Amino acid sequence: MMTKEQYFDSLRRLKPVIYCNGRRIESVVDDPMTRPHVNSAGKTYELAFDPQYEDLMTATSSLTGRKINRFTHLHQSTDDLVKKVKMLRMIGQQTGTCFQRCVGFDALNATFIVTHKVDKECGTEYHKRFIEYMKYVQDNDLMVAGSMTDVKGDRSKKPGQQADPDLYVHIVEKRQDGIVIRGAKAHQTGMVNSHELLVLPTTNLGAGDKDYAVACALPVDAPGVVHIFGRQTNGERRLEGDIDTGNAEFAIVGGETLTVLNDVFVPWERVFMCGEHQFAQEYVETFASYHRQNYGGCKVGVADVIIGATAAMADYNGTPNASHIKDKLIEMIHQAETMYNCSIACSAEGHRTEAGNYYVNTLLANTVKLNCTRTMYEISRLAHDIAGGFIATLPYEADYRAEETGPLIEKYFAANPAVPTEHRIRMARLLENMTGGTALAEAMHGAGSPQAMRVMLYREANLEHKKGLARKLAKIQA
Amino acid sequence: MMTKEQYFDSLRRLKPVIYCNGRRIESVVDDPMTRPHVNSAGKTYELAFDPQYEDLMTATSSLTGRKINRFTHLHQSTDDLVKKVKMLRMIGQQTGTCFQRCVGFDALNATFIVTHKVDKECGTEYHKRFIEYMKYVQDNDLMVAGSMTDVKGDRSKKPGQQADPDLYVHIVEKRQDGIVIRGAKAHQTGMVNSHELLVLPTTNLGAGDKDYAVACALPVDAPGVVHIFGRQTNGERRLEGDIDTGNAEFAIVGGETLTVLNDVFVPWERVFMCGEHQFAQEYVETFASYHRQNYGGCKVGVADVIIGATAAMADYNGTPNASHIKDKLIEMIHQAETMYNCSIACSAEGHRTEAGNYYVNTLLANTVKLNCTRTMYEISRLAHDIAGGFIATLPYEADYRAEETGPLIEKYFAANPAVPTEHRIRMARLLENMTGGTALAEAMHGAGSPQAMRVMLYREANLEHKKGLARKLAKIQA
Amino acid sequence: MMTKEQYFDSLRRLKPVIYCNGRRIESVVDDPMTRPHVNSAGKTYELAFDPQYEDLMTATSSLTGRKINRFTHLHQSTDDLVKKVKMLRMIGQQTGTCFQRCVGFDALNATFIVTHKVDKECGTEYHKRFIEYMKYVQDNDLMVAGSMTDVKGDRSKKPGQQADPDLYVHIVEKRQDGIVIRGAKAHQTGMVNSHELLVLPTTNLGAGDKDYAVACALPVDAPGVVHIFGRQTNGERRLEGDIDTGNAEFAIVGGETLTVLNDVFVPWERVFMCGEHQFAQEYVETFASYHRQNYGGCKVGVADVIIGATAAMADYNGTPNASHIKDKLIEMIHQAETMYNCSIACSAEGHRTEAGNYYVNTLLANTVKLNCTRTMYEISRLAHDIAGGFIATLPYEADYRAEETGPLIEKYFAANPAVPTEHRIRMARLLENMTGGTALAEAMHGAGSPQAMRVMLYREANLEHKKGLARKLAKIQA
Amino acid sequence: MMTKEQYFDSLRRLKPVIYCNGRRIESVVDDPMTRPHVNSAGKTYELAFDPQYEDLMTATSSLTGRKINRFTHLHQSTDDLVKKVKMLRMIGQQTGTCFQRCVGFDALNATFIVTHKVDKECGTEYHKRFIEYMKYVQDNDLMVAGSMTDVKGDRSKKPGQQADPDLYVHIVEKRQDGIVIRGAKAHQTGMVNSHELLVLPTTNLGAGDKDYAVACALPVDAPGVVHIFGRQTNGERRLEGDIDTGNAEFAIVGGETLTVLNDVFVPWERVFMCGEHQFAQEYVETFASYHRQNYGGCKVGVADVIIGATAAMADYNGTPNASHIKDKLIEMIHQAETMYNCSIACSAEGHRTEAGNYYVNTLLANTVKLNCTRTMYEISRLAHDIAGGFIATLPYEADYRAEETGPLIEKYFAANPAVPTEHRIRMARLLENMTGGTALAEAMHGAGSPQAMRVMLYREANLEHKKGLARKLAKIQA
Repeated sequence: MMTKEQYFDSLRRLKPVIYCNGRRIESVVDDPMTRPHVNSAGKTYELAFDPQYEDLMTATSSLTGRKINRFTHLHQSTDDLVKKVKMLRMIGQQTGTCFQRCVGFDALNATFIVTHKVDKECGTEYHKRFIEYMKYVQDNDLMVAGSMTDVKGDRSKKPGQQADPDLYVHIVEKRQDGIVIRGAKAHQTGMVNSHELLVLPTTNLGAGDKDYAVACALPVDAPGVVHIFGRQTNGERRLEGDIDTGNAEFAIVGGETLTVLNDVFVPWERVFMCGEHQFAQEYVETFASYHRQNYGGCKVGVADVIIGATAAMADYNGTPNASHIKDKLIEMIHQAETMYNCSIACSAEGHRTEAGNYYVNTLLANTVKLNCTRTMYEISRLAHDIAGGFIATLPYEADYRAEETGPLIEKYFAANPAVPTEHRIRMARLLENMTGGTALAEAMHGAGSPQAMRVMLYREANLEHKKGLARKLAKIQA
Repeated sequence: MMTKEQYFDSLRRLKPVIYCNGRRIESVVDDPMTRPHVNSAGKTYELAFDPQYEDLMTATSSLTGRKINRFTHLHQSTDDLVKKVKMLRMIGQQTGTCFQRCVGFDALNATFIVTHKVDKECGTEYHKRFIEYMKYVQDNDLMVAGSMTDVKGDRSKKPGQQADPDLYVHIVEKRQDGIVIRGAKAHQTGMVNSHELLVLPTTNLGAGDKDYAVACALPVDAPGVVHIFGRQTNGERRLEGDIDTGNAEFAIVGGETLTVLNDVFVPWERVFMCGEHQFAQEYVETFASYHRQNYGGCKVGVADVIIGATAAMADYNGTPNASHIKDKLIEMIHQAETMYNCSIACSAEGHRTEAGNYYVNTLLANTVKLNCTRTMYEISRLAHDIAGGFIATLPYEADYRAEETGPLIEKYFAANPAVPTEHRIRMARLLENMTGGTALAEAMHGAGSPQAMRVMLYREANLEHKKGLARKLAKIQA
Repeated sequence: MMTKEQYFDSLRRLKPVIYCNGRRIESVVDDPMTRPHVNSAGKTYELAFDPQYEDLMTATSSLTGRKINRFTHLHQSTDDLVKKVKMLRMIGQQTGTCFQRCVGFDALNATFIVTHKVDKECGTEYHKRFIEYMKYVQDNDLMVAGSMTDVKGDRSKKPGQQADPDLYVHIVEKRQDGIVIRGAKAHQTGMVNSHELLVLPTTNLGAGDKDYAVACALPVDAPGVVHIFGRQTNGERRLEGDIDTGNAEFAIVGGETLTVLNDVFVPWERVFMCGEHQFAQEYVETFASYHRQNYGGCKVGVADVIIGATAAMADYNGTPNASHIKDKLIEMIHQAETMYNCSIACSAEGHRTEAGNYYVNTLLANTVKLNCTRTMYEISRLAHDIAGGFIATLPYEADYRAEETGPLIEKYFAANPAVPTEHRIRMARLLENMTGGTALAEAMHGAGSPQAMRVMLYREANLEHKKGLARKLAKIQA
Repeated sequence: MMTKEQYFDSLRRLKPVIYCNGRRIESVVDDPMTRPHVNSAGKTYELAFDPQYEDLMTATSSLTGRKINRFTHLHQSTDDLVKKVKMLRMIGQQTGTCFQRCVGFDALNATFIVTHKVDKECGTEYHKRFIEYMKYVQDNDLMVAGSMTDVKGDRSKKPGQQADPDLYVHIVEKRQDGIVIRGAKAHQTGMVNSHELLVLPTTNLGAGDKDYAVACALPVDAPGVVHIFGRQTNGERRLEGDIDTGNAEFAIVGGETLTVLNDVFVPWERVFMCGEHQFAQEYVETFASYHRQNYGGCKVGVADVIIGATAAMADYNGTPNASHIKDKLIEMIHQAETMYNCSIACSAEGHRTEAGNYYVNTLLANTVKLNCTRTMYEISRLAHDIAGGFIATLPYEADYRAEETGPLIEKYFAANPAVPTEHRIRMARLLENMTGGTALAEAMHGAGSPQAMRVMLYREANLEHKKGLARKLAKIQA
């Protein structure tokens, strides 16, 4: 296993082509735009050496018998699946963001299953090749980007029907020593700080789309690979001081790229599917089901931080004992633990595959992510409700540091006298960046707090009159 | 009435002290950080001269009989209240953001009501003074910032109990010619591009808090007034090209400030409450009820743009006819029109006050904002669902403009062939900025679209088995 | 106008064929199964003579200039539309249930509009005939059942494609003196205690379905008409004492029938559409939009009673001051007033038709019912939450009256000592009956399926305009 | 283990005093009012002999080593906890209703834990006694009613503060041979067809309420015990034909009673708590947590039937392929499986107690029931949406059987021609009865009020830890 420092060094040895905001990023470890994402992924290396997390973070390889980082493990039991979820929640709690390494983790396990099946039905040798690749990944503790999502072009058309055939990654040449692929993968989480990328198909494919049925692995700095780093909400704040970016060390979400594969050569020993279109859908769904399992882990870890930050803001504002505040915190907790339950359950209800690794209950795995697509909005809404309009209109750190304005901000943003103003500002910035910021927080506030409106509704609704109506119909003599 | 250009010039003549990101803003009209907010407010001046909106945008003054901008009007009928809502929706549709001028509009109408009542009960002369002030505002077509929200300090304590007495604005000196006030107002929408600010109390006050019962008007550049401009999510993108900021002309929300009142002198003729603490709560609620009425206007206009952008994204992606897309658009429409209904109803059910202007139905006005605090999140969620992870991981405009990466982005972000790639990018950036961006959009996506999960749920739920169970209990022979 | 007593007598003079639970009902006024529904409808007659409701309950006929019951009025202004909503809420508050008379009210106004249009485009004389019919209805203060919903058979097929051509009402013979129709209408609210029924088409019709394009009026006891009275949840409790039925005087919902039209003859002067299939859809939607308007009136009246009963239960249980109880009551109030807002707004935003009566804003009217299909469930859920499991497990009235068990129930169901146990039981029974089974299923349906409303929302929301707004802000050249 | 027939015979040998609708019920097995509940509970006996369910339905006693019905088992592993959930779902699928036996199951496991703890801290001998009682229950395969919920009187007062001291069950006399208790237990699920009842405290108790700290077991026909059978929505339909009652064999929910304990004597060997008030709260919460675990089992089984019935109705109506129908079915599935996930997770995350049996994760168990109190309403709403108004207005079975009306109903309620009309009617009646009144109110309650669950969630969520996580990321020095 690599330490965090070894991971950083290993990244420095790679030379991927990365563009960001009109310039090249030379070192993802040292460039402030990418560094926080590197820090997040670095946690997956660092915590593997922390004795208190050894059980969650490491495993024994089913291929080599060696101790490995769990992120390179082929799940050997439902207990392994459950530990995956707990590991993700724990790292999510520590980073408050995406640590990116699960995509490849899931792609590896899915490829293990599908190559086994393809070989069995088609007499190919992908599985054997893939086992060798897995050993290489495990022994070198590599971070692998799971590279599934094609750019897709017109969503109403299949790959081969697109105006431009390159809108899904496809094989443009088969050579004696390997294949040449072209296309682009979008939303590539953790790509710039991975060692390898594992290409998978992104949709079910018909017989006419054989060339799109391709799976293979390659280094992130293979010739012809170009990464364009996506722009995140508030992404550039990390180039300044450390308050306004909220989570200065780890940033927000995963640092995605558009990764262009410009006639990239892949040798045969790294090719794991090449034309077997009939397995594309199962491949996609296997990967996706593993991946849906995760969200009740990592996102609940993130939600734990949001809940903690919101509860802290209530403390700072002097409102921790208001019953409506408690009730909203309870709702946040309820939503978060419901997501967690879904991930635990789809893991505990997993089963052994023919290939020998363990796979989640797919029906249940779908509920995980569907809940997540709703509850993260609800959790953010409640966080804004409790934290107040404050998070939408805070001044700049530069003004907080400036001589003319700093003392004014210090004085006027004091709340609970036991809490330094800076704490309140830092917590608000953490929340702003984790929950979608100004536009929504302002929709929540303005015209008084929602609680003030509820109090007025209660007072003005004339409940006594309504009780009288009910008594009359229930034939009760007043 | 002023034209938009006259409004811009009038702002240039004022010299408020504004800090932003460690520097002074010399001209709000010409500084790129504040210019979009000026443009939004400018629409309230520009549209007043557009014949097609004359009926909505202008009114006849009840004080002078002159034609005035509706934003300076004292409502004379429920029809006026309804027109206010329609005007706000229309401008919201044109700007896609907050145009800031309703806060003062509401504060003026609320002050008209409350001063009348105070005079009647206390024998004071605030109402007469205030009528003179109203004429001044109407004749000069001024933009007035409604300045209610104090910074509030520890929320569990009343103003006079705070560790620092300045955490609510209060009177520090009564002089022969006027009063001196100190404190700070937070979340001051539109402040930097207003002419005046109208200070109101922010909470109910007891007899011990008399000095906090203060209402008065002053120019935004009065001596002792310092404005610290808040930082918005993605706020600095407006300093770059015009794509990534989303809504380059008008920006997002209202450009709030922390406005510090550093021993500011106000002459008696601009003082409208001075110690009558027993009216503070009614004042707050009157203002708030008028203000809650607005959200089913302006926010629905904003929602119309979000719905339109989402529908356009579906067109660009090639999915406008998918039934689940239509269903989500319907839900967005339903939520938006429900908010609108609440604003229309609280207006149509308004009534004449003793002071002579018209006031909303307060019970109903509360439902407006309460719905808004929920539906804007739901609308954003559905927008993310339809628009796709695309809005969370888009490249920088600089990379789109660059020689090395521009052609790759052009090629690979093509979708519906009839639509230029740039249109798709622009629409996605508009949505990102209007709906809270990366953190939430990523919670929605990842592991496939929610629709893919629903399809899997349907397929895997074994409905035939469930039907069999029901048939057995319903005693139906299969 | 008829008094309630005259209404009862007028019903006694009719001899409709009504079956219920295996027997004939000879007098709807005197049979305990139908009497509560008669009482509810009777309120629409009784209250018209109550001076305090004169403005809501009566109007001046646009046809005759005579004072009429509002339920027979052709709306002459948006104020009439708003008064309709307020009238419905008020009667809903007094009856706690459906009073049935709005269906015909809406059918009359819709027929007035559509016959005018058909005549104009086809040169027919339906409108003139219909005006005569309206005068007859107004002068005799008749209750008319709006008879739209066909039984529909296989929902995937049009009327003429059904295995049995009678599954939609159709013309089976045109004679010199009139037409003969056959078929059946389902869910016929208030039918058994109406004087007349007004048949309308239920769906859009193609040229092949001309015989299904039929509208006409006939007495409920016309030869060939058979009514089969539906069974309601807990319906037979009304045959016992007065506690367990909950709302003994007025019962729950509208007393629906399946009304079979067995080759029924209708003279030409009562035929208002006969083959003009191209107007069927507009007819349906006009009726439905008027009918959707109602739900924020009558159902909010019903909700007021549920809220009142729930608040009373909290009093009886000793929990009125618990903050979570208050919060749930607030939520119920918020939901109810939101529905009301939607009805008020679609009324206030109505417009004059070419025929001369006033029509609701159809976009907004759809939101009324869509909200209702959700909020009545939410309101019921919260009522159950506050009222407790008590409402699900209460003993029988017979046991409460019995010597052996009565004292035990009296002793052990005591709560707040100031409240007689019987009050608590009565209130619980009222809630049980208002919030379960039939009541909820009817809140969901009525005025068309929720899906029909969603389709109309989509069509009427003018998405193209919204897309244009978004394109403008995103700086996209159209 | 007993067979179903032996269970029936064993009930016939008991002579409990049961009142229902003004009369005595002499034999719960043979009386049509109680027979369906007996059938449901009978399934727990019958299925224990079905080889395909042996693993779920039976276990090996930890006390005797004998094979026992799982409903009398002390959980020996998390796998046992998971099997409990799967068993409950399976029986729920087969009965479509409550089968009542889990209440005692949970009370037995909770008493096992608490008696162990009390003995350890107080030197008492309750646990030893209780083990003997457990062996008796296991060896005789008894059905035990868990008797927790007191009638509670005024909810704002503690037991000893009530106007009537009997509103909570209490010890009125301690004798040499045992104790005498008085009071009443409400909502007693399955009581009339149980063999024994196990009395537990219902709330936390102070030192002044020692006499209310009582746990003990007694036969349901012990002298002084009077059962008053509750009235359910549509309960009497079971006295007629088999269509309108919906689920003729098993009925709806659990057949609750008010069970009065009129100075009932209990010998010491059946007394498991007698004055140790300080353990009352833990006792309540232990029982409640076990009981909350169940709802994602049994209620999901019930939901499976509702989903199946709804899907069948769509088939019968001819609409199974409409995309909005599919989407609603998906939502129902999603809600049901989310509940299931919560139960599976709180089981898989259970732990061994000091007493030696296994206990659920209490934080997670609370989310189960909280979700249930919402989703059963949502599932019912969607069922009504798809099934149509049909379920609210269906005619009586008597009219369907009658000569005059039967053919009309047969003809006009035909839909999909491949489906007999009777099937459609039967399915609609099943849905009506499963989704209204009592069914919903019971889904809300059971296992304590939703508020009690929220309070536990707040307490157990470890907010301080979450705040610490947020502070760390926000770089705040603690």
